[in-house]
Amino acid sequence: MAILVVGSVAFDSIETPHGSVDRCLGGAATHFALAASYFTEVRVIAVVGKDFTAEHEAVLAQRGIDTRGIERADGLSFHWQGSYAGNLSEAKTLGTDLNVFSTFAPKIPEAYRDAEYLFLANIDPVLQERVRQQMPDARMVCGDTMNYWIADHRESLAKVLQGLDVLLINDGEARMLSGEHNLVKAADAIMASGPKSLVIKHGEYGATAFFSDRSFPGTPKLHPFRAPALPLEEVVDPTGAGDSFAGGFYGYIASQAVFTPEVFRRAMFYGGVMGSFAVERFGTERLQAVSEQEIENRFRLFQEISHLGFART
Amino acid sequence: MAILVVGSVAFDSIETPHGSVDRCLGGAATHFALAASYFTEVRVIAVVGKDFTAEHEAVLAQRGIDTRGIERADGLSFHWQGSYAGNLSEAKTLGTDLNVFSTFAPKIPEAYRDAEYLFLANIDPVLQERVRQQMPDARMVCGDTMNYWIADHRESLAKVLQGLDVLLINDGEARMLSGEHNLVKAADAIMASGPKSLVIKHGEYGATAFFSDRSFPGTPKLHPFRAPALPLEEVVDPTGAGDSFAGGFYGYIASQAVFTPEVFRRAMFYGGVMGSFAVERFGTERLQAVSEQEIENRFRLFQEISHLGFART
Repeated sequence: MAILVVGSVAFDSIETPHGSVDRCLGGAATHFALAASYFTEVRVIAVVGKDFTAEHEAVLAQRGIDTRGIERADGLSFHWQGSYAGNLSEAKTLGTDLNVFSTFAPKIPEAYRDAEYLFLANIDPVLQERVRQQMPDARMVCGDTMNYWIADHRESLAKVLQGLDVLLINDGEARMLSGEHNLVKAADAIMASGPKSLVIKHGEYGATAFFSDRSFPGTPKLHPFRAPALPLEEVVDPTGAGDSFAGGFYGYIASQAVFTPEVFRRAMFYGGVMGSFAVERFGTERLQAVSEQEIENRFRLFQEISHLGFART
Repeated sequence: MAILVVGSVAFDSIETPHGSVDRCLGGAATHFALAASYFTEVRVIAVVGKDFTAEHEAVLAQRGIDTRGIERADGLSFHWQGSYAGNLSEAKTLGTDLNVFSTFAPKIPEAYRDAEYLFLANIDPVLQERVRQQMPDARMVCGDTMNYWIADHRESLAKVLQGLDVLLINDGEARMLSGEHNLVKAADAIMASGPKSLVIKHGEYGATAFFSDRSFPGTPKLHPFRAPALPLEEVVDPTGAGDSFAGGFYGYIASQAVFTPEVFRRAMFYGGVMGSFAVERFGTERLQAVSEQEIENRFRLFQEISHLGFART
């Protein structure tokens, strides 16, 4: 089933202990779409500037991603500059140029409207909500956000949260959004504000899913589910790891005929798998060329490192 | 098989957001011994002062723990004062009175000498080494340490590390000991300095075991193994969680006829189980009275929250 994702298609300038890149293709929607493209059909809504060339578009098109919803505007594409000097678990933002994103008014092409899965990547919650309202028949709506929107755009974010099936955020965002340090209390508070399920990403420690009886009607309240991250000796560039997690997670869900607790759990593993590939190279390089066999092998590796009685072959 | 543990039997004065306790029974060896006592026979080597009464000894004796190696000295027992105000994941030490521990010279009773499993809890590495040398026939030696010894007692700690089958430490200690921020690189460096296997505890995020071909001779290099922690809504008192983890971990290993990768993996889960009980009440209260059924139920819960295809009953 098709996923419609709205979010940034951008250029990133990144410094890590492994080197630096200048204006490589990035953005939340880009990482998400590439990761999800290994599982299902993906359609992108975004805006780019004149610096987004046919070559950049080909990166998405080669993965079969539908780019008809990427609007061209005068000016430059969204540009993010960040550094991970010394600490690969947190980026220091050196600069953010919204450029064409500052006046973005997302419009959904007719050919996109039958997408059943909607992903609201990390952008202004006003835009997230506008897209959601244009997709009233979506079967499932997942979304992401970040500290900036939590701090200063509470009211518009609250509307988005009310319409979400799953919210994916990290530890710091969960604590900030809820005002609770304890992650279980944070999860309870956040889910009371809207999302039927919640995925909290812990970076190198994996991720936790929290379910409620609203996640799976008719089932009793479920325990949380914890998926590991792969201990990695080398993280070349963490940019987009969270978006790639979301792409693997949601791509797998959209590829399945039914949505069950077990599908959700497996999706958490596929999220970790795609996140672990993403950080192996700068930008989107690794996500452009993963093989299905590599994905399945790594999925198995995630089971080996976390499951009892799991024979090594 | 019996475990001999050397470490502190002490009194703790603790403040947490849930309240405070004054001079309750604590210490690394105490928490370790109580947790391990649910799996196997445990013998304690420690020193206490006049403030350690028959009532305190009964806490250990009621769990079948052998206390004949607990020496009585003039003066007061080791006393630790700590606070977790606001942050339950890290204690702020308000005071440490070594008292009788400052002149401790561990002696191993004849009746203890056939213990096959040795645990060197977090004390001066000179004392750890002295105990190890008195137990040359131990089948397995595990140990713990902390930032204080890593920072200022490198040389004596290095000797202890060389003799360890398994070292159990936390993230911060692993980084400090190795000088590497990346935990896989840290694990490689630490294991090159002695320990055949390494367990790094991540607090609320669980723990990771690192194996080498020295962990299990004849087997190829193994992948790391990650065990979850239980997401807890209430942590009443985190004191001793790491020691309780070690007790569950090592107690389970000592209870098994053979030491295999699968036993190690299951031990990681039992470690998490005992750690999760320990924090439910102040001091050792919860560890004094866990039922075998509760342990097995929680072990199953740990599988449910981390294993794919694990049916809920």
